[in-house]
Amino acid sequence: MSPKPGESLDPSSVGIVAVGDELLAGAHPDLNSPYLAYRCLEFGRTVRRVIVVGDEEADIAAAVDALARETATVFVSGGLGPTLDDVTRHGVAKALGVELYESEEAWAEVSGWFLRAGRPVLESNRRQALIPVGSERIPNAFGTAPGFRAVHPSGAVVMVGPGPPKELQGVFDSEMAPWLAAHPPDSKKRAKRTLHFGDLPESTFADGVGVWMARDANPLVGVTVKEGVLTARCVATADTETEANRLAEESAAAILALFPDRYLGEEVEGLGSFVGGFLAEKGLSFTVAESCTGGLVAGALTDAPGVSAVFQGSYVTYANERKVEVLGVAQASLDAHGAVSQQVAAEMARGALERSGARLAVSTTGVAGPTGGTEEKPIGLVWFGLALRHASGEIEVRTVDRRWPPLGRERIRSWAKNKALGLLLEGARDLTA
Amino acid sequence: MSPKPGESLDPSSVGIVAVGDELLAGAHPDLNSPYLAYRCLEFGRTVRRVIVVGDEEADIAAAVDALARETATVFVSGGLGPTLDDVTRHGVAKALGVELYESEEAWAEVSGWFLRAGRPVLESNRRQALIPVGSERIPNAFGTAPGFRAVHPSGAVVMVGPGPPKELQGVFDSEMAPWLAAHPPDSKKRAKRTLHFGDLPESTFADGVGVWMARDANPLVGVTVKEGVLTARCVATADTETEANRLAEESAAAILALFPDRYLGEEVEGLGSFVGGFLAEKGLSFTVAESCTGGLVAGALTDAPGVSAVFQGSYVTYANERKVEVLGVAQASLDAHGAVSQQVAAEMARGALERSGARLAVSTTGVAGPTGGTEEKPIGLVWFGLALRHASGEIEVRTVDRRWPPLGRERIRSWAKNKALGLLLEGARDLTA
Repeated sequence: MSPKPGESLDPSSVGIVAVGDELLAGAHPDLNSPYLAYRCLEFGRTVRRVIVVGDEEADIAAAVDALARETATVFVSGGLGPTLDDVTRHGVAKALGVELYESEEAWAEVSGWFLRAGRPVLESNRRQALIPVGSERIPNAFGTAPGFRAVHPSGAVVMVGPGPPKELQGVFDSEMAPWLAAHPPDSKKRAKRTLHFGDLPESTFADGVGVWMARDANPLVGVTVKEGVLTARCVATADTETEANRLAEESAAAILALFPDRYLGEEVEGLGSFVGGFLAEKGLSFTVAESCTGGLVAGALTDAPGVSAVFQGSYVTYANERKVEVLGVAQASLDAHGAVSQQVAAEMARGALERSGARLAVSTTGVAGPTGGTEEKPIGLVWFGLALRHASGEIEVRTVDRRWPPLGRERIRSWAKNKALGLLLEGARDLTA
Repeated sequence: MSPKPGESLDPSSVGIVAVGDELLAGAHPDLNSPYLAYRCLEFGRTVRRVIVVGDEEADIAAAVDALARETATVFVSGGLGPTLDDVTRHGVAKALGVELYESEEAWAEVSGWFLRAGRPVLESNRRQALIPVGSERIPNAFGTAPGFRAVHPSGAVVMVGPGPPKELQGVFDSEMAPWLAAHPPDSKKRAKRTLHFGDLPESTFADGVGVWMARDANPLVGVTVKEGVLTARCVATADTETEANRLAEESAAAILALFPDRYLGEEVEGLGSFVGGFLAEKGLSFTVAESCTGGLVAGALTDAPGVSAVFQGSYVTYANERKVEVLGVAQASLDAHGAVSQQVAAEMARGALERSGARLAVSTTGVAGPTGGTEEKPIGLVWFGLALRHASGEIEVRTVDRRWPPLGRERIRSWAKNKALGLLLEGARDLTA
């Protein structure tokens, strides 16, 4: 893991130190290190080790020192606040073997921040202008705490930034990323392509993509899943930019070809805002009739800012009476098949479509648990209806069911929400095909 | 940080190694370490350092070895799967300086898991039955991978468990927690109290509670915030159980006295399910009229499993026409004040209450952005209505507004959702006071 004495550090290697008592007390997961790790890939760098320590000068110094002897770039996040327990500056200076001094530039930045916010600058904030001798300030436009960049005696570059994730991400994008781009670990060129998929489990993706996900593959394929969206990122390395682009493009195309009907696009924030945005872009009005999802589907679709152009409103019909009154579901269907049934899902979607005049309607009705499951209709069973109003005026109604494992009400409702969003997308594509 | 040679390890000290390439590629934050850290507090143990490494035998061995020389208990999570890149067993055995062998017990557990699931046992699964010589198996009732407990030459106890958070948490609760309870770090007794609060920012809490949150305070107060619920945990240490209980009770009472109107209860999963459950328990029927939250409020309230007894359904009225048609908002009010106004919020809540016959109704209408803000009605402005049907039959309507900073549509909608839930709770308490 560590280079032998005299051997130089692998220029592509990265270490991360996350600082904060709150990270060791279980208050927060460390979100900065995954972000830094993910972003480093596109600059040809890979994270070898992350160390999380509390707000203790000696622990911070030991962690920075250990990583600076193993990895060429060390990121440190957190512990730059104005209070006495914020000792990251001191710990890093100790690891570097230098003193801190009050940087005029940094003080101007700190005090300027308070002046602009119309708040008094406190003497305690002077602490935030301290940086190690010989280091360069890293400005922070997203909060009061400037960071700094310094070189460890090992030759490793140490970059220190704020702890709050939004601040750290902002500082990374505006300050650290340009530095990384200007200091490539080798003379290679890199290119990346990002693909987003919906309704695609991570395991299915991994089975399909296989060896491309190995740590030393080229292109390197990384994957993240968030809010129902699977994001795959291909980073290709080559001698020329043209070749890197070609490789990245090729691998992205091959991955896309594996799951064409699950593909969403290149820039997707969340499944709800993607589907809502797609419907708005295509001018397809829609509505939702929700039982077991209780408002989550409409809630997700309205994440899309422009959706008001095609979304007037929707219904949560939790009780059977409401399904009858609001959506026109037949009481006979409820009596014969129960609320969680193909028949009722179909009538909910059709009713919502007809009563709203929209082009598309999706419905959900299921058993989310923890009680209410039967042998015939177990916890995890959800029926979906999708009603489409074709250009001809003809109304088509489709239904589908899912039987998810009974892994908790929250997860079942979340899976059902994402499935309903996927169905709306399917309907929208069919209407505009 | 590390004890000098010959000095013994601090029995309360804990180290954690989280293993997984996916943790270093930014695919997932490490959720296991915060969980372990939080749970360790109640057993009188504090985490000193977390190291995250990839699926590399040498890196795992080095991390376990380093922590076993500094801390008395070392947890290792992840890398226990059946594939060749799962090398945690090998790395830990190396750190312990022993070989692996196939444990009959462990093999019976692994193969039994597959038999019960009706799936064939593969030869590759034999790998999952390997444990280091001299270690004790830790059964895993939540997945296929058993863990193990061993003693490092330093005297540190090393406990190895699965990587998926649900599995790790299950194994911790059923196997590791009882072991920790049976092996206290000292002869002291501990007691804990947990308090949950709604509508209470972490900074307000920290300002109020102050020094109780210091790392060496007794009782020790820890705080987490999730889904609009702030959880405070007081852990008191004393020579006797009675004294520990008294201290914990005292500190919990003092904290409660600081924020009595924000207090929810002792066991709360999320704000939506708490408020929904409270309404169900009190038999108070309710409905929701949502504009800017687009279904999120109803979605959160239906997290509560028993809510169907008091919730028939609700409305998402995104377009003005729907506010008029579905809720009976006066067109004149929309024309005079606009949709985002005190008047319209009040009429939405009243209309929802009257048309549904419910005891309580809450409404939301605001500017979530990123466009649509004006000087008078900036992004982040949300108006809320709360309609109460008193036992006398009298209807009361209250309104309140919030002006949140324009930190993104998602956050504004989430704040608005939590505020609406807080209002419903306030109304429910007033109706049952």
